[in-house]
Amino acid sequence: MRAEIITIGDELLIGQVVDTNSAFMAQMLNDAGIELYQITSVHDDAAHIASAVMDAFSRADIVITTGGLGPTKDDITKHVLCNLMGGKLVPDVNVEAHVRALYKDRPDVLNRLTETQWQVPDNCTVLPNRVGSAPLMYWHTEEGRALFCLPGVPYEMEVAMREQILPAIKSMYAKNSNSIIHRTILVSGIPESALAIHLDTFETELPADIHLAYLPKDGTIRLRLSSYGLSEEIVSKHLQKLIGLVQPWLVATEDKPVEVLTGEWLKKQGKTIATAESCTGGKLASLLNKHAGSSAFYKGSVVAYSNEVKENVLCVPKEDVEQYGAVSEQVVSAMAQGVMKLLHTDYAIATSGVAGPDGGTAEKPVGTVWIAIACPEKVYTEVLHLRGDRNVITDKASAKALVRFVQKVVEKAQN
Amino acid sequence: MRAEIITIGDELLIGQVVDTNSAFMAQMLNDAGIELYQITSVHDDAAHIASAVMDAFSRADIVITTGGLGPTKDDITKHVLCNLMGGKLVPDVNVEAHVRALYKDRPDVLNRLTETQWQVPDNCTVLPNRVGSAPLMYWHTEEGRALFCLPGVPYEMEVAMREQILPAIKSMYAKNSNSIIHRTILVSGIPESALAIHLDTFETELPADIHLAYLPKDGTIRLRLSSYGLSEEIVSKHLQKLIGLVQPWLVATEDKPVEVLTGEWLKKQGKTIATAESCTGGKLASLLNKHAGSSAFYKGSVVAYSNEVKENVLCVPKEDVEQYGAVSEQVVSAMAQGVMKLLHTDYAIATSGVAGPDGGTAEKPVGTVWIAIACPEKVYTEVLHLRGDRNVITDKASAKALVRFVQKVVEKAQN
Repeated sequence: MRAEIITIGDELLIGQVVDTNSAFMAQMLNDAGIELYQITSVHDDAAHIASAVMDAFSRADIVITTGGLGPTKDDITKHVLCNLMGGKLVPDVNVEAHVRALYKDRPDVLNRLTETQWQVPDNCTVLPNRVGSAPLMYWHTEEGRALFCLPGVPYEMEVAMREQILPAIKSMYAKNSNSIIHRTILVSGIPESALAIHLDTFETELPADIHLAYLPKDGTIRLRLSSYGLSEEIVSKHLQKLIGLVQPWLVATEDKPVEVLTGEWLKKQGKTIATAESCTGGKLASLLNKHAGSSAFYKGSVVAYSNEVKENVLCVPKEDVEQYGAVSEQVVSAMAQGVMKLLHTDYAIATSGVAGPDGGTAEKPVGTVWIAIACPEKVYTEVLHLRGDRNVITDKASAKALVRFVQKVVEKAQN
Repeated sequence: MRAEIITIGDELLIGQVVDTNSAFMAQMLNDAGIELYQITSVHDDAAHIASAVMDAFSRADIVITTGGLGPTKDDITKHVLCNLMGGKLVPDVNVEAHVRALYKDRPDVLNRLTETQWQVPDNCTVLPNRVGSAPLMYWHTEEGRALFCLPGVPYEMEVAMREQILPAIKSMYAKNSNSIIHRTILVSGIPESALAIHLDTFETELPADIHLAYLPKDGTIRLRLSSYGLSEEIVSKHLQKLIGLVQPWLVATEDKPVEVLTGEWLKKQGKTIATAESCTGGKLASLLNKHAGSSAFYKGSVVAYSNEVKENVLCVPKEDVEQYGAVSEQVVSAMAQGVMKLLHTDYAIATSGVAGPDGGTAEKPVGTVWIAIACPEKVYTEVLHLRGDRNVITDKASAKALVRFVQKVVEKAQN
């Protein structure tokens, strides 16, 4: 059972928009045991869309398109697919009622372009789009294949995929789907190549149906075991062996982002955390707040970009800033303790570094980042030497600070 | 002159990684006047990679691959392309010297897997990778086509693309590239379909070689005029007409993110800003710090996730929180004024809302967000009613707060 995704839109091919839809759909398909074979991004061009769909059907059983369903002239996907599948557009009273209800408080949206949204092909199944005006459509072919057509707005696509499209696919192909199993663990503190050498024998001895992949990101490496058609028990046996081998660098035995591991542990303990950020400028706060329920453990952050804020709000001693500089063990440690005291939390994390491109010196080049983790009993500090541009450095510093929190606080408490 | 991109890696097809490389490369190719025709993502599989490359060459003159150049067993791109182009792998002393220099302080990385990085095809041009160990490679075909092979690590790909690959492409194909011109403006405050009706005549009267596209994102719409082969003067004439037509909703006449517009104006005025965030949880701070040089205008932020922090740090009156609730005009206004006073800035932006999925009420459902912009002379407030999930709501609220800053402060000062 193979699927392919076709994302449609000139904005993808001129680089104005990053395609985040494909990764979301890929995850859902994989979780359902359906292999995603290829992702293709094409222009808002009738011939290009049609040939991409035909090519995809030469390799796959299920083709899903996203994009090009808006009300404006550059949106042609519905017309092209309707034509390709031999249908014609007709008005649909259910879609009309849905769109009218959706915009009942917005008369400015209920105009003649929006009215084109209730024109649908006469030979496809139409599903309502709960959170938008473009209807979802799908066709069955005589050869038992299926073509699904979804909007490109990420939130609309996500709701459609979760609530309607995946259930429809599952009910159509329940019998045919392979058992694909992916298991991912997280390690940090060893270079990718050294880890691969360390795991060489393990990797060589893996059965042919299990595959090991290395996914380095932000100073951590995710190790993924993928199996096609094997049982949970067999995969689990190899996973346990892998976990044993990487023990010294292990951060987590599941594919959860470090901010989730941090949040889950704090919530379970009934403890709170705050952050004080200089170079990461709000990224660490944003990471910790990304997931629902963060107000249970996260009280807040002081982004202290200027030294004045470090001194006046976080009570970092002026002498420390002058003697050691803002990027120093003394200052980052005082920032963590300062915010912990100010916001009355159990833990605090602070960052102070040179994110670049300017501000580097011989002694403290761009990429030098001090992190501090304040606990009730002690303050843990570490200096990082990171490579990359401004965004890479702040991403890595934020991730690494949370990795260290997990390793120094969460795991220590669990052992 | 057409190019295609092939991104290689199982992680893309199981949705573990979002492909951000393609958008970056697409932008660079477009800026250089080279049309990107298609993006294809394939597995780490020899037959799949080879057929994708051959297919791409049936449509395009330039094919660029990224990914699969790491030192581990799942990285097979170099072997597959070497084979496909009829070469064999041989050691390269320059690459060896580069990798040894790169890791001179990291003996743990200089191991036998890393040594495979200086094995390169004997029939291609090898370029050094300034920031990584995997060499860049390219082949010319007899038909005048070219195949470029880049690493998948975003930072390495970006440096390679900017410093080596694009200059190489430009020197090869300088004469053949079309003059592609894209001009984008930013509007906010009108639904996409209403805007399209408003612009209907303008769009119909555009010459065939100019195309108008609508790109809605985070509550704003980018309008893009694209021309193929026309002169700057002609495109500019149509752009000016478009700007005149959208005047009531215009935010910017160039494709700059609102945080850049905000920062550039503040820097030019020698003014400073601070933020106080509740529901956006650090996202607004992170946006304002995203680009180099933000320390010139940005002093810091207080992420006041709990009411205690709002009251104790930002001096929001306890009575206001109790009487009106944290998500209210009174509280968001006090937050903005509080942080402006605390951090001694000229301006401040504050947000307080219900990001969901929990916490919504009949009176203040999920998506209700108050924003405040504090200026020296007054405080501007507005309530937003946003749709979407937690991340969509916080993205939209952060973007919208900056849109309002540009409209209420920057444009007012300029008029």
